[in-house]
Amino acid sequence: MTNMMNFKQQIVLFFGVITTLQLNAQEATKQLYEYADPMIGTAKMGHTYPGASSPFGSIQLSPDTDTIPFAVDGHYNPDVYKYCAGYQYDDSTIVGFSHTHFSGTGHSDLGDFLVMPTVGALQLNPGTEAEPDSGYRSRFSHEDEEASPGYYSVALKDYNIKAELTATTRVGVHKYTFPKADNAHILLDLTAGIYNYDDKNVWTFLRVENDTLITGYRQTNGWARTRTVYFAMAFSKPFKNYGYAKADKSVYNGFWGRFDQTHNFPEIAGKKIKAYFDFDTEEGEAVEVKLSISPVSAAGALANMKVETPKWGFEAIKTKVQQQWNKELGKIQVASLNESDKTNFYTAMYHAFLGPTVYMDVDGNYKGLDMNVHQADDFVNYTSFSLWDTYRALHPFFNLVQPKRNRDMIKSMLAHQNQSVHHMLPIWSHYANENWCMIGYHSASVVADAIVKGNVDFDAEKALEACVATANVSYFDGLGYYKELGFVPEDKSGASVSKTLEYAYDDWAIAQAAKKIGNEQVYTTFMKRAENYKHVFDANTGFMRPKLSDGSFKKEFDPLNTHGQGFIEGNSWNYSLYVPQDPAEMIEMMGGKHTFSEHLDSLFTMELPDKYFEKTEDISRDGIIGNYVHGNEPSHHVVYLYNWTDTPWKSNDKIRNVLRTMYKTGADGLGGNDDFGQMSAWYIFSSLGFYPVAPGSEDYAIGSPLVVDAKVYLENGNMLHVETKKQSEKNKYVQKVLWNGKKLDVPSIKHSNLMQGGTLTFIMGRKPNKSLFVQ
Amino acid sequence: MTNMMNFKQQIVLFFGVITTLQLNAQEATKQLYEYADPMIGTAKMGHTYPGASSPFGSIQLSPDTDTIPFAVDGHYNPDVYKYCAGYQYDDSTIVGFSHTHFSGTGHSDLGDFLVMPTVGALQLNPGTEAEPDSGYRSRFSHEDEEASPGYYSVALKDYNIKAELTATTRVGVHKYTFPKADNAHILLDLTAGIYNYDDKNVWTFLRVENDTLITGYRQTNGWARTRTVYFAMAFSKPFKNYGYAKADKSVYNGFWGRFDQTHNFPEIAGKKIKAYFDFDTEEGEAVEVKLSISPVSAAGALANMKVETPKWGFEAIKTKVQQQWNKELGKIQVASLNESDKTNFYTAMYHAFLGPTVYMDVDGNYKGLDMNVHQADDFVNYTSFSLWDTYRALHPFFNLVQPKRNRDMIKSMLAHQNQSVHHMLPIWSHYANENWCMIGYHSASVVADAIVKGNVDFDAEKALEACVATANVSYFDGLGYYKELGFVPEDKSGASVSKTLEYAYDDWAIAQAAKKIGNEQVYTTFMKRAENYKHVFDANTGFMRPKLSDGSFKKEFDPLNTHGQGFIEGNSWNYSLYVPQDPAEMIEMMGGKHTFSEHLDSLFTMELPDKYFEKTEDISRDGIIGNYVHGNEPSHHVVYLYNWTDTPWKSNDKIRNVLRTMYKTGADGLGGNDDFGQMSAWYIFSSLGFYPVAPGSEDYAIGSPLVVDAKVYLENGNMLHVETKKQSEKNKYVQKVLWNGKKLDVPSIKHSNLMQGGTLTFIMGRKPNKSLFVQ
Repeated sequence: MTNMMNFKQQIVLFFGVITTLQLNAQEATKQLYEYADPMIGTAKMGHTYPGASSPFGSIQLSPDTDTIPFAVDGHYNPDVYKYCAGYQYDDSTIVGFSHTHFSGTGHSDLGDFLVMPTVGALQLNPGTEAEPDSGYRSRFSHEDEEASPGYYSVALKDYNIKAELTATTRVGVHKYTFPKADNAHILLDLTAGIYNYDDKNVWTFLRVENDTLITGYRQTNGWARTRTVYFAMAFSKPFKNYGYAKADKSVYNGFWGRFDQTHNFPEIAGKKIKAYFDFDTEEGEAVEVKLSISPVSAAGALANMKVETPKWGFEAIKTKVQQQWNKELGKIQVASLNESDKTNFYTAMYHAFLGPTVYMDVDGNYKGLDMNVHQADDFVNYTSFSLWDTYRALHPFFNLVQPKRNRDMIKSMLAHQNQSVHHMLPIWSHYANENWCMIGYHSASVVADAIVKGNVDFDAEKALEACVATANVSYFDGLGYYKELGFVPEDKSGASVSKTLEYAYDDWAIAQAAKKIGNEQVYTTFMKRAENYKHVFDANTGFMRPKLSDGSFKKEFDPLNTHGQGFIEGNSWNYSLYVPQDPAEMIEMMGGKHTFSEHLDSLFTMELPDKYFEKTEDISRDGIIGNYVHGNEPSHHVVYLYNWTDTPWKSNDKIRNVLRTMYKTGADGLGGNDDFGQMSAWYIFSSLGFYPVAPGSEDYAIGSPLVVDAKVYLENGNMLHVETKKQSEKNKYVQKVLWNGKKLDVPSIKHSNLMQGGTLTFIMGRKPNKSLFVQ
Repeated sequence: MTNMMNFKQQIVLFFGVITTLQLNAQEATKQLYEYADPMIGTAKMGHTYPGASSPFGSIQLSPDTDTIPFAVDGHYNPDVYKYCAGYQYDDSTIVGFSHTHFSGTGHSDLGDFLVMPTVGALQLNPGTEAEPDSGYRSRFSHEDEEASPGYYSVALKDYNIKAELTATTRVGVHKYTFPKADNAHILLDLTAGIYNYDDKNVWTFLRVENDTLITGYRQTNGWARTRTVYFAMAFSKPFKNYGYAKADKSVYNGFWGRFDQTHNFPEIAGKKIKAYFDFDTEEGEAVEVKLSISPVSAAGALANMKVETPKWGFEAIKTKVQQQWNKELGKIQVASLNESDKTNFYTAMYHAFLGPTVYMDVDGNYKGLDMNVHQADDFVNYTSFSLWDTYRALHPFFNLVQPKRNRDMIKSMLAHQNQSVHHMLPIWSHYANENWCMIGYHSASVVADAIVKGNVDFDAEKALEACVATANVSYFDGLGYYKELGFVPEDKSGASVSKTLEYAYDDWAIAQAAKKIGNEQVYTTFMKRAENYKHVFDANTGFMRPKLSDGSFKKEFDPLNTHGQGFIEGNSWNYSLYVPQDPAEMIEMMGGKHTFSEHLDSLFTMELPDKYFEKTEDISRDGIIGNYVHGNEPSHHVVYLYNWTDTPWKSNDKIRNVLRTMYKTGADGLGGNDDFGQMSAWYIFSSLGFYPVAPGSEDYAIGSPLVVDAKVYLENGNMLHVETKKQSEKNKYVQKVLWNGKKLDVPSIKHSNLMQGGTLTFIMGRKPNKSLFVQ
């Protein structure tokens, strides 16, 4: 779906408030997948990609609009950050279509197997956006572009080629409709990639098995240090000639120039390989390409292709993928105040279901962290765990609507821990590699949340052991000091306060899991560690503040600055609110309910000058309200902290404000990186009227819903119905909340209640109910 | 065994001619493996290695005396050729002990996993021979060195460490006896290697699983373009600390300096890694190290180690390997004229049994040319096929004494062909790679020889198809022209005459296999191709001579020069004699029996100035008699061509001369590269009195034996007895040959006869029997 609204939609918006009845009439004409718009977040800092993927699919087949080098003259190129997902909406050219992309991340990798169809003189370099004719890239226009879950198409203007993409779990499917040409080419640029270091390609290997089939692999040293992706690539029409260019000095000794290996020679290898395949085409002739991937071998990729796409036929494959999306998105049937809200809701659902991604062959084989091949016997193995982001709301969301997948993700993490030479659960892991990005050991939170919520078909004792082992690796990121001193000292390990706070929360989560399964010893040990946040609270300033190893607070201190203050991707002002495991105690520590409520108010109203966060990746003006940084994760629970004050109602308009200003339709609709679904999961929960402030607890904090109505179809067969009364643009204040008709006295509801099915009713009003939930 | 003879041996030699009886007495005190001397060929151009290997073992654990860069300032460094096997006898220092070596090759690769024990300040660079103290290398002396099949030891003088090595098929076992030290180290230099390009290391990966176990792999781009060897390394004593240095710019992003990964951090990867492991040692304390390899995975390497060396104990492992050698060497029980001959004989047997090498895990898994993992269901998979050398006599020798292994080697070649994207049998193949070295498609000869000799348990029809497919790949090395024109034109593809001659021979071999299995069509086609040698014979000069694509002979022509004349590693004089498939016709073409006999005489007596072969690798003065180049392969059948003339007797003294001058005891005993056993197989056959002039034929040409007596224990349970009468230093002329007591009338005997068992009797005399075999 493009982000252009049709006339009917505009009419609907014109009338403002609409009724559920009207929406239902609308729904009949439109399938759910048509509400999700993959273009949202593709401009500025959303870092989403517009291309085709199936739910949680291994393949993310998407256009890349530029190939930005990771470093220029040996120095990090900050522009590379824009291209985390390969595509930037404001660009005017497309370089090609590559098969792997992260969704919404704040650092990146991948971009494997860039394919580009061209016509005319063979060009093997991409050229520049300023001079598109200098390379194989093509101009394009958003008017000729279409994107919906599982489908993307664009007209490549320079070549008069229509490109269409779809993807099963492990197979990217291309359909290129060519003009008449005796010099049509399909390029496979193995040097292309995202976050492309000059020597990122460690090795590539390519075999032309016959005139319609290629196999091989690409091995990279990128964000994943040691990563290999195997592939098979099939053409619906035989190529007439092929060849390659190599831009590295790797050797193939035996040849010594004895025979030509650059043209129609079927064995190709090296570090920087660009291959081409030539065709004659008739006017309007479509050539389809299938490219499957495997973490194990080319043989695995070929088997994946045979199982998932046994026959040619782009349309049939696309239709099947769209049906899969309908099924997944249909897990929540929502009625919204307007079309934009509905688009945003299903786009959030879509983004939430793009990862973690399946990481195994159809036979269950995958390569593990030890680089050995492992078999996932009784689970689907997943990879790409952006855990510093996703432990907060995405995995809790999965416990609600994707419990089976979440259990499999946990089994994947436990397999990771088993293969890890550190005996650690993943920190930020992708493709059998630990990239160590960001801080904490939030896998523990994901594991604990599932255990506490009873979403368990794994060995909970073993899972707890894995958490405990992870929390005790002394050489990891200041953890030895933390264990010894109760805090991470800033002079020994930077971002020390963020680490201390997050370790303390993770420790609490581990304790909750231990409690649930009756391990008193672990519970006691980790509940004690969970209080370590107190060690970095400076009562004099009222903020969390870095300590040195001698126990004194670091002298220089600016609670607004995000640079060099002992925090990571945040300032003390925001991070000081990070005690999700015990907001009541934190609020007491910070002056009590009333004082804290006003303190919190000021967060949303104060001014934060640019200098305090500029050059901090993942934080931009678009994601900020006052000094509240919604565009990055550490504050995601903050608005719900009002529930622990004497003014719970204050959250209501702020939640509505965030939902409306940080999530908009249009390519530039997202207030920050989607972060592999975490931003989206915040949107979904908050739209439904509740939020998991502390994963590892059964409790959701009650907020203020945006939906008019939502039916959540749970995997256990029950249905959770969120209904609203008097919901409207202006009626954003909750007057009363009922669970199965019974009034809620506290601003929270338990996961186990929701899972039994039932109706959560929000009665809305134009003015705050200031006495609601005041205790 | 060192090359120092003991006193008793010297006494025996002093008396010159000794009797079989005396030798038998001698034998009782010495095991067979003690006769083989791995030091032979380690000086000059023998290119053998002195270290430990089991028969046909995957591991060749041997000292490397220098690490010579493949290129200096971008130009090939000719000195690298000396270090094909890592060791040069005249060097004074040892860099370390690496686990993989080719035996006797004329180009090289490997040298994986160099291990070095040291004491004192940690040094991670090897230093130079001129200044050994500048690095981790150590001085050594041949006086402190001992080498016998499966065992090597040396004193590392700089560290007062005794190093001992042995090897099972897949496990190298080290025993290091240290002095008292609190700073003992064992280094693992993953950057070391043979034929070491600056960027030969594509990637290395290392995990410190615990304080006695390391796993990982080394991936290289060398002679094998895309090669990975996995390993597991175990220590008998826990190390107290470890760490590494990295000399490349590969990235591990997540760290960003957050925590130290260079010391006691168990996950190591990059392109240029040198790791160290620290110990405290008592005086005389032995630390054992086991390093196993796998073509598949670290898990495979670990399983190989567990199966082959389940327990620690250097001595027991060594003894078992020596017993294996006794068994293999015992397949021929020989009595010799003197100890040196016996040493040379068993050394030749030893060298002949060093390769091809086993290339699969204990579970039968191996990585194939397509980089997929394959299972060798019903055979042992072998690699390192130096076929341009070994098709001549080594594989025929295997058909005689290692028929099971030869069948498995052929199955390995057929698996290679099945995996090859070219659908070609191996040319020069090692470790799942085709390195294309040298010319021809001599796998076809190996396959055909086995088929013709009835040594078949593979699908002979399929094997023939594989040969035919190989012989029809038009883009291979002038083969398209050969098929079209009947010869390779020099203006299109260099070394054209050598290629034409060798293709023609291989074609004849294919025809013989076709005939044997009744495929008339292939027989006819390839017998026609077998005559293509006639197209490059220039009747005017009497030599084979390069033709151009217009059919004319190339004008400039010097039949003595090895450079740029249309030949490879040989001159026209020698190569013109290469029609093994039809010597009679060739001799007719070259002037008839008598003329040819004199022509052949001159080969051995003429002078070949250095300028004609200097700078030609694989040919040195040591390997030349007149213009006869025994040190390289193309002439290996030549002395037996006298059998087709009117003077068969003329071969006798020349054979004896070659056996005595080209094969001597001592490190510099070999007249040229042993070429993975081909030189040795020539020695063994010729010592026994017969030679396979044309593999693919049942016939052996009768020569003049050097042995006094030999009992060949055949796998079928039969015994072939080669006995001599009146054999002595001077009685080198054959007077009469009997097979099972019946006089031979022709100078040949069939393989099938020998395999039935029986006695081949040579009656020797001081003067030629000039009428013997004259037809």
